[in-house]
Amino acid sequence: MIYRIEIQTHHRNELLDITEEVARVIKKSNIKNGTAIIFVPHTTAGITLNENYDPSVRRDISESLARLFPKSGPYSHTEGNADAHIKSAIVGSSRTVFFENGNILFGTWQGIFFCEFDGPRRREVFVKIIPDA
Amino acid sequence: MIYRIEIQTHHRNELLDITEEVARVIKKSNIKNGTAIIFVPHTTAGITLNENYDPSVRRDISESLARLFPKSGPYSHTEGNADAHIKSAIVGSSRTVFFENGNILFGTWQGIFFCEFDGPRRREVFVKIIPDA
Amino acid sequence: MIYRIEIQTHHRNELLDITEEVARVIKKSNIKNGTAIIFVPHTTAGITLNENYDPSVRRDISESLARLFPKSGPYSHTEGNADAHIKSAIVGSSRTVFFENGNILFGTWQGIFFCEFDGPRRREVFVKIIPDA
Repeated sequence: MIYRIEIQTHHRNELLDITEEVARVIKKSNIKNGTAIIFVPHTTAGITLNENYDPSVRRDISESLARLFPKSGPYSHTEGNADAHIKSAIVGSSRTVFFENGNILFGTWQGIFFCEFDGPRRREVFVKIIPDA
Repeated sequence: MIYRIEIQTHHRNELLDITEEVARVIKKSNIKNGTAIIFVPHTTAGITLNENYDPSVRRDISESLARLFPKSGPYSHTEGNADAHIKSAIVGSSRTVFFENGNILFGTWQGIFFCEFDGPRRREVFVKIIPDA
Repeated sequence: MIYRIEIQTHHRNELLDITEEVARVIKKSNIKNGTAIIFVPHTTAGITLNENYDPSVRRDISESLARLFPKSGPYSHTEGNADAHIKSAIVGSSRTVFFENGNILFGTWQGIFFCEFDGPRRREVFVKIIPDA
């Protein structure tokens, strides 16, 4: 009931639309109605839902977070990615969606985004399908 | 098992207490013990738990977020609500609570807040009830 | 199916590693495969996942949040902990992990942190175990 999605990011900071990949996993599960939890097993990345129509939205999210937590700052962690850890802690490592008849119950503009904060890297996302009782 | 709550917000930025509405939905479900996931199908709103005793708390949350992400900023999105998308991405689109004997397992001061970041609008919240096994 | 973990924090702002405590609760449940939701019943604390190898990471998260939302600010709430409420709203009151064969499905560096924003205090965390169908 746990599916793995492989991801390749291309920039240090990037929001990647993984809506299609998650929708495909739900179809593959053959579960009609249930809950899907999307989980990121990384400490310098996150997951969020937001508008996936106008690409400027994901860019604004990414850049606003970068302004708030610049790469170089008064950090103790010496690996040069303290900012990425902080963003990951705030945005969060999982999101939950519902589905009915195999389709995710989204609002009009919603999509699922993998949030890369320390790329480019190969990444992974776990999707757990919990069928309705 | 998915209930819809209709909401009318009255300001651009506003935290609206929806604790009673969610509690009512749990009673209506006739499930005694379980988990409720509260989901916002919008990309310029969010959901959070916080103190619902002193109204100044929700005002401070709303205003602090507005100071961090002002309405006008160096954004690419041209619809005038980039700030709202960013806040939505950070606060998050869902929260989870447990209930026993039909009552939400809250701490003393906890309540559930719909976070409006681009109001006033008519909004919707989905509540999914997952009964204990 | 809901377990309570008691916590004593020692500073006003502090990230406390509770990975072991949560892992122990999962073992105790005797459930092999499932989902664990970790919930904080407090409005001035939060829960997050992040790196638990280098302690400087948790310090950077804690201090970056404190710089963003200083204890004294233009707040309405007069109890001196408005900053803590705001951080709690943003970081969030719950996190979800999956487990298989009794072991949490973490990435290499992931751990679970209780986020204290208004300590030192005695605190509590609820862990709900949802067994796989």
